Amino acid sequence: MAFHLLKRDGAEVEALASALREMKEKVQFCTRCHGIAEGELCAYCADPGRDASLICVVEEPADVFAVEKTGEFRGRYHVLMGALSPLDGIGPEELTIASLERRVEAEEIREAIIATNPNMEGDATAMYLSKRLAPKGVRVSRIARGIPVGASLEFADEVTLSRSLEGRREI
Amino acid sequence: MAFHLLKRDGAEVEALASALREMKEKVQFCTRCHGIAEGELCAYCADPGRDASLICVVEEPADVFAVEKTGEFRGRYHVLMGALSPLDGIGPEELTIASLERRVEAEEIREAIIATNPNMEGDATAMYLSKRLAPKGVRVSRIARGIPVGASLEFADEVTLSRSLEGRREI
Repeated sequence: MAFHLLKRDGAEVEALASALREMKEKVQFCTRCHGIAEGELCAYCADPGRDASLICVVEEPADVFAVEKTGEFRGRYHVLMGALSPLDGIGPEELTIASLERRVEAEEIREAIIATNPNMEGDATAMYLSKRLAPKGVRVSRIARGIPVGASLEFADEVTLSRSLEGRREI
Repeated sequence: MAFHLLKRDGAEVEALASALREMKEKVQFCTRCHGIAEGELCAYCADPGRDASLICVVEEPADVFAVEKTGEFRGRYHVLMGALSPLDGIGPEELTIASLERRVEAEEIREAIIATNPNMEGDATAMYLSKRLAPKGVRVSRIARGIPVGASLEFADEVTLSRSLEGRREI
């Protein structure tokens, strides 16, 4: 990137520099869900048309955009800011889990969809969250792991196919 | 392959040729499930230790091996020999659907897990099978579509993520 910028003229580099500064000044984290926001609340927390009783719990702010792109989720979000990973020194205190628990207690939340990544850290985080949230009377669910749409059985790895069989649904 | 064989000596090519001939003579399709068999019945249909009340319906004989590799399925199989694809002239008669219906009527089958590929043809086949089998009192389920194990939300395509949200399960 540095070599590329060396070749551009001064005005362009200046424009990039001030865009970066402006981004850092304006963009902050939503005080409620910890997603990307330009004010106190993010666009989804501020939108009264969203179903406040359904929250989708994701690891990173970027995951909010991934879920939004599906166009099928009309609830709100909670960004954990990572996943549990004891080996890297990331415990529940390093994540926004306490804030999630307070939300479940204070807001009228019916269901929390845990959409952490389907890997070891994501699985551990989902299990932990389920143990913490379920006693508060909220329904805790996890997104399905399985064969991606358009893929084929023959080339699926064993673990994915095994989860896919386990997670079968009546049709 | 032809160029590679040109470089090998005669005995090796002869060995390959007779192995191919032997395979074609010995290997046939199971008369019950249409999977790969060395006799009348395949290894899974012949095994009395398998759960006969659960069948996994797949498109191709190779898919049987994919499911077996998971080590988690203890039922039997039914190989359709393809998927419905009207544009390619493949209708229900081109597949082993009539034979599957006879099995569901004759055997004590409790559940049929439709493990067709998660693409358009596989989806159409699953819908068709569900309509044919459900009235016979068998439970029809479909393997889960979703994010593969080890992958991440951020790089999942919209359709897969959308199926993954839809197919969420309580934990």
